[in-house]
Amino acid sequence: MVILLKKSYDKAQLDSLIAWLKSKNFECHLSEGTSKTILGLIGDTSTLDIDLLKAMDIVEDVKRIIEPYKNVNRRFHPDDTVIEVGGTKIGGGNLGLIAGPCSVESTEQIVEIAKKVKAAGANFLRGGAYKPRSSPYSFQGLRDKGIKMLLEAKKETGLPIVTEIMDISQLEHFEEIDVIQVGTRNMQNFELLKELGKIRKPIVLKRGMSATFEELLMSAEYISAGGNTQIILCERGIRTFEPATRNTLDISAVPLLKKLSHLPVIVDPSHATGKSSLVKSMSLAAAAAGADGIMIEVHNDPPNAWSDGQQSITPDEFKDTVDAVKKIWSFCYGVVNEKKD
Amino acid sequence: MVILLKKSYDKAQLDSLIAWLKSKNFECHLSEGTSKTILGLIGDTSTLDIDLLKAMDIVEDVKRIIEPYKNVNRRFHPDDTVIEVGGTKIGGGNLGLIAGPCSVESTEQIVEIAKKVKAAGANFLRGGAYKPRSSPYSFQGLRDKGIKMLLEAKKETGLPIVTEIMDISQLEHFEEIDVIQVGTRNMQNFELLKELGKIRKPIVLKRGMSATFEELLMSAEYISAGGNTQIILCERGIRTFEPATRNTLDISAVPLLKKLSHLPVIVDPSHATGKSSLVKSMSLAAAAAGADGIMIEVHNDPPNAWSDGQQSITPDEFKDTVDAVKKIWSFCYGVVNEKKD
Amino acid sequence: MVILLKKSYDKAQLDSLIAWLKSKNFECHLSEGTSKTILGLIGDTSTLDIDLLKAMDIVEDVKRIIEPYKNVNRRFHPDDTVIEVGGTKIGGGNLGLIAGPCSVESTEQIVEIAKKVKAAGANFLRGGAYKPRSSPYSFQGLRDKGIKMLLEAKKETGLPIVTEIMDISQLEHFEEIDVIQVGTRNMQNFELLKELGKIRKPIVLKRGMSATFEELLMSAEYISAGGNTQIILCERGIRTFEPATRNTLDISAVPLLKKLSHLPVIVDPSHATGKSSLVKSMSLAAAAAGADGIMIEVHNDPPNAWSDGQQSITPDEFKDTVDAVKKIWSFCYGVVNEKKD
Amino acid sequence: MVILLKKSYDKAQLDSLIAWLKSKNFECHLSEGTSKTILGLIGDTSTLDIDLLKAMDIVEDVKRIIEPYKNVNRRFHPDDTVIEVGGTKIGGGNLGLIAGPCSVESTEQIVEIAKKVKAAGANFLRGGAYKPRSSPYSFQGLRDKGIKMLLEAKKETGLPIVTEIMDISQLEHFEEIDVIQVGTRNMQNFELLKELGKIRKPIVLKRGMSATFEELLMSAEYISAGGNTQIILCERGIRTFEPATRNTLDISAVPLLKKLSHLPVIVDPSHATGKSSLVKSMSLAAAAAGADGIMIEVHNDPPNAWSDGQQSITPDEFKDTVDAVKKIWSFCYGVVNEKKD
Repeated sequence: MVILLKKSYDKAQLDSLIAWLKSKNFECHLSEGTSKTILGLIGDTSTLDIDLLKAMDIVEDVKRIIEPYKNVNRRFHPDDTVIEVGGTKIGGGNLGLIAGPCSVESTEQIVEIAKKVKAAGANFLRGGAYKPRSSPYSFQGLRDKGIKMLLEAKKETGLPIVTEIMDISQLEHFEEIDVIQVGTRNMQNFELLKELGKIRKPIVLKRGMSATFEELLMSAEYISAGGNTQIILCERGIRTFEPATRNTLDISAVPLLKKLSHLPVIVDPSHATGKSSLVKSMSLAAAAAGADGIMIEVHNDPPNAWSDGQQSITPDEFKDTVDAVKKIWSFCYGVVNEKKD
Repeated sequence: MVILLKKSYDKAQLDSLIAWLKSKNFECHLSEGTSKTILGLIGDTSTLDIDLLKAMDIVEDVKRIIEPYKNVNRRFHPDDTVIEVGGTKIGGGNLGLIAGPCSVESTEQIVEIAKKVKAAGANFLRGGAYKPRSSPYSFQGLRDKGIKMLLEAKKETGLPIVTEIMDISQLEHFEEIDVIQVGTRNMQNFELLKELGKIRKPIVLKRGMSATFEELLMSAEYISAGGNTQIILCERGIRTFEPATRNTLDISAVPLLKKLSHLPVIVDPSHATGKSSLVKSMSLAAAAAGADGIMIEVHNDPPNAWSDGQQSITPDEFKDTVDAVKKIWSFCYGVVNEKKD
Repeated sequence: MVILLKKSYDKAQLDSLIAWLKSKNFECHLSEGTSKTILGLIGDTSTLDIDLLKAMDIVEDVKRIIEPYKNVNRRFHPDDTVIEVGGTKIGGGNLGLIAGPCSVESTEQIVEIAKKVKAAGANFLRGGAYKPRSSPYSFQGLRDKGIKMLLEAKKETGLPIVTEIMDISQLEHFEEIDVIQVGTRNMQNFELLKELGKIRKPIVLKRGMSATFEELLMSAEYISAGGNTQIILCERGIRTFEPATRNTLDISAVPLLKKLSHLPVIVDPSHATGKSSLVKSMSLAAAAAGADGIMIEVHNDPPNAWSDGQQSITPDEFKDTVDAVKKIWSFCYGVVNEKKD
Repeated sequence: MVILLKKSYDKAQLDSLIAWLKSKNFECHLSEGTSKTILGLIGDTSTLDIDLLKAMDIVEDVKRIIEPYKNVNRRFHPDDTVIEVGGTKIGGGNLGLIAGPCSVESTEQIVEIAKKVKAAGANFLRGGAYKPRSSPYSFQGLRDKGIKMLLEAKKETGLPIVTEIMDISQLEHFEEIDVIQVGTRNMQNFELLKELGKIRKPIVLKRGMSATFEELLMSAEYISAGGNTQIILCERGIRTFEPATRNTLDISAVPLLKKLSHLPVIVDPSHATGKSSLVKSMSLAAAAAGADGIMIEVHNDPPNAWSDGQQSITPDEFKDTVDAVKKIWSFCYGVVNEKKD
C-alpha cells in the first residue's frame, strides 16, 4: 500500500501515523521528494481500512498494491478448487453443464425437462422456485412448492439441483437442495452471504450486474470467511449502455477471475444476452475462454414459459449446444488454462 | 403496447393471440403493411408479461407505450405525496434535511452529533447501525446496540431517526425507528420490499447503483403494492466509467422522478461523490434542481470516523451548507416545480 | 414506426400531420383508445427524422420498429459480403488473421515482424504509422515515414497492409495501402467517413468505445452511402465501469452484428483487454463466436515496444494462438453461422 | 509514480531500470518487503510512458500519483483563466450565457433568434453550421453558408459567435468566428486538436461522451501544448445505462474540473438531457454548482427545428431560465468557488 501525503503535511501527524502503523506490524518506507512525499507500507493490508487512511488530514491519496481478499486469492492458494456434489464435479478440469427452466411450473414440467436435459448431457438441473422479478405484478415463483417439485425431479433423474435463494428466511427449505444460487441482485446482500458462510453446501455466486471483479471476489470472501469454501463464481453479463442485449457478457471475466482466484468460474449465456438465438455462440465462446461450466435456461415450450421464455432454448437446441461445447472445451480447457502466472 | 409480428407469421396463431388478448379485455388494432404488420393493444398493460409476448413464435418485438407502474405514477395520482413524521414533513414544498454519521460509534458520539446537526438546521438524524461493507473484514456496525444509541439521541434532541435495514430479520429492532432506509444494494431485495410494504412507516428507498428510473419506481411499486405508500425516493449516484468520483450524481433524476411520480425525491451528495469537498456544491445543485431534501454524512471528527470519513463533513461545514441550501431551495423550489406536464 | 399522441391532442394538428405523412408516401393507421391514441406508420422510415416527430406539439413519443440503416442491413442484402485484397479474403467463410506491432518503429523492425507473423499464419500485416495517443507528450507515430516502412514490409513479404488514418489530410499517403483502418475515436468522424465513402479500398471500421451496434452500423452506412461497400466491422471492447481490463470485450457483438448486417465482423482482443495474457483466450472466444477474423498486436520485443507493449504478444505466442484459433474456427464457423434468421 | 515489481524479479534488470530512470533525472526509492518490492519515483513523470514501464519483464504494476497534464493543471497555475472575446468574458467570476439554435437554417432565422436571445440576456450566439449527425440521411448543416449567416447575425447584434468545427479542412471558414467548438465526438480527434493549438482563438472543448475528466484535460493539454491556452471546458452529459435521458449530466464535473484545472467550465443542459423540459432545472443546478457559463439550445419554433427540436427551448423560456440562473449564480459562485484546495 502506498500513501501520498499532502504537500504541506504536519510532521507530528506523520510521526503519529507511522507509529500507529508500526504498532499494527506494518513496515513503513518514507520517500520525500520536492513535489511530493510518499509513505510505502509493507505488511498484510487486507484488514486495513483504506477509507480511514484517505480521510486523514495529512493524506492526499492511498493506492492499494495487492488485492484485499485472501481466502479466495490464487496468490495464496495456487491449486484449483474442485466442487463435488454426489460424484459430479465442477472445476479443476471438470465441466459443469447446468440446465433447466427459468421457473419451475409443475412437477410434470420440471420432471420432463430434467429428463430431457439429462439425456442431452446436463449434469445439474437448475430451476427457479423463488423468483426475483422487477415488477410486483409478475409471477413470483412457486416458492417452497417449487422446491419440492425440484426434489421430485432429482428423485426421478438423479441430477443434483441448483436453485436460487432470495432471503435468509427461505434457508429452511433448502436442506435437500444440492447447490444454492445467489442471484445478481443479492451479490452484496451481506447478511445472506454471512448465513451461507455458515452452511456446508456449494454456492453459485452470480456477479452483480454492475459489480467489479474485486467486488465479486470480496463477496466470495464473505462466504469463505464463514468457513464455506465451496463457491462457484458465475459471469452473467454486466449492465452497459448497449440496448441490443439485456446485459453485456464480459467474456474476459473467465480467464481473469481464474487468474485472480482458485474458484471455478462458470458462464450464464441466457441471462447475459437475454436472447435465445445467442445462447449457442456465447456458450462456445465461454468454453473457448476456459470456463469451468455453463448454466443455460432450457424450456420444453419456450413461447409458453411463465418467465424469460425469450432467452430459453429447447432441449433439442440444448443438446446441439452441449455437443459443440464439449468438443470446444476438451480442446481449449488445457490450452487456455495452462499457465496461471 | 405495440406488437411487431414476424414477416411470415402464421394467420391461425395470430387469431389465437388476438382471441387470448381480447379475453383479457384488451382492444386490438391490426395494421398490415407490405414489409411489416403491427398489432396495437389498448388496455391496462401493466399486468401483462412483456417477455411472454416476445417469446411467441409469431412476435418479432414488443414495445411498451406507457409505464408499468401504477400506484407511484403521477399520471394517476397528480398530487405530491407529503411524508409526515411527528410534525416534520418532506415533500410537497417541505424540505427534509437529514444528517448524521455514516456509522453510529457510541451514545456520546451520536448524541453530540445529533445536537450539532439539529443546531445547524437538520430536521432528521441519520446514522448507520447495520452497515453494508464490501469487505467482511471492515467494521460491520454496532447493529441493535447502534439502534438503541440512535433512540437515545432522539430522546435527547427530538429529531426523528432514519437508519438502514439490511435484512428482514432485523425488522424487530426498528419498532421505534421513524424512517427505515433501504440501501442501494437492497433496492431489488424484493422479499425485503414486500415486508416493508406490510408496515406503516416511511421508507427511504435509495436508487440501486445501476438501476434505471423505471426499476427504482418498480421497487417503490413493490412497497406500495403492500399498502405502504409513504416512500421517499433517493438519488445517491450511479456507477459509470468515471473513476474520479465514487459514483456519478445523476442530478436529472430529481426533475425526472418528480415528473414520473408523486413521491418526494431527495439527494445524498455524500455517497454520490465520495468526497467531502464536493458535498456543498452538490447540495446546492440538488436544491436548485428542485429536490425535496438532502441527506448528508456529518461527523464530529471525519478523519477518525469508523467508516466513510472521506465523504463526511463537519457540523460547521454542514451549517454552512444548510444555510446556503435553504436560500437556494426557497428560491428554486417553486420555480422548477411549477409545471408537472 | 409508431407515434404515441398526447392525451389531449388537437384534432386539426393530427389531420395536418397525417396529410404531411401521406404526402411523403407513408400509410397511416390510427388506433384511438380511452387512455391513449397511437398512429402507426408503414413505409420507408429510414429517411424520416425521428427527433422532428418527437418535437411536435401533439406527439408524446415515437418508437422505431425497423432499423434506420439500409445498405449495410442484412434484411435487404441477405448474402455475406466478402472482402478481397490481392487474393486474400475476409468474410463469407474466409478467416482474416491480421497481426503486427502497435507502432511501426523502423524498417528493420516492421520487416522482421512481418516475416514472423506471416510464418505464423497471418494473412495481413497491421502496424501504426499515425498513432492516436491520449497524451500530447507520448510518441505520435512515424507518420508518412511509417507508411513507407509498411510498404517496404509488404514488398518483402507480400502481405497486404492494414493501417490507421486519423485525418482526411493524410489520405494522400494511403494510396498504396491495402486496407484503411478507422480507429475507435474516429468512428463518428463523419467528414472522414464521407471521404472514405468516395474511395474504393476496404475499410476496417472499429466500434467507438461507447458506440451502440446501431451507431456502428450507421457509421458503416455513411461509408457505404458514398459507394464504398467494402467495410469490415471490428469489435475492440467497450468502456464500462470495470477497471481490471482496459475495455470490456463485447463478444456478443460478433453474432449480433452478423445477424443485423452482411458485413464481415472481426475482433481485436489486444485493445479489448489491454493485457497480453488475455489475448489467446479472447482470440479463441472470438473464433468460437463465429468471427470472420482477428486483429492482434504482435511485437518482437514487447517490453521495449514504443507503445502498448503491455498488450502485445510475441511472434511465438502469436503462432500458438493462430494454430488454436484455426482449429476452433474451422469447427465453429459453420456451427454458429448456420442460420441467419 | 510507484512501480510494483514482480515477486521474482531479476536483480540485474532492476539495476538497469534504475540506471535508466536516473539518467532521466528521476529519484528512485526502493522498498523491499517479504511479499512485494516497490520502486518509488520522484520527478516529473508527466512525460514518462506508463505503458512502457508496465510492459517490462520485472514490473507487475505501475501507479501514477500525480496527474499527467501540466499546462492545464491548477496545481501549477493556481489562478483562474479568464477568456475574453471583444469585451465579453468567461471565467474567473464572469458568467457566459451562450444560446442559439442547434442548426442555422436561414439568415432570417438566425438573426431573429440572435436578437431574441440577446434581449433575454445571452452574451454569445451559438448555432450549428457543420452538423455531426449519426445518420448520413439526416440534415448535415448549411456548412460554409451557415457560417456566413452567423456572421450576419453577429453584425446585426454584436454578439460573438460560437460554432462547431468538424474537420481541419473547414478551418479556413472560421477566420471571423470568435469561438470554435470541438464537439463530443471529436474530443479525441488529436490532429484537429493540434491544429487548434496553433491558432489564437478561444476553443470550447466538449467532453467526449465516455471520456474521463483526465482524458478531457489531456485533450485540453493537446491544444495548450501548441500554445493556445484559451480553452473553455464543457460538460455535456456522459453515456450511461439510463435510457430516460439522452445522456447523464455529470454535475460533479463542474467543481471537480475547476479544482483540477484553472480553465473555465461551462455546462450544456440541452445535449446533456435531450429534453427541453429539463433545461431550466439543469441550468439552475449548473449555476448552483459553480459553473462559469451555460450553453443552451434556443429555437424560435422548436417543433419545426431542422434538428434537435426536442431539446430546444423558446426565447421566452430562455429569458425565464437566464433570469433565474443569474440570481442563483450571483449567490452561489463565490460560495462554492471560495476554496481551491
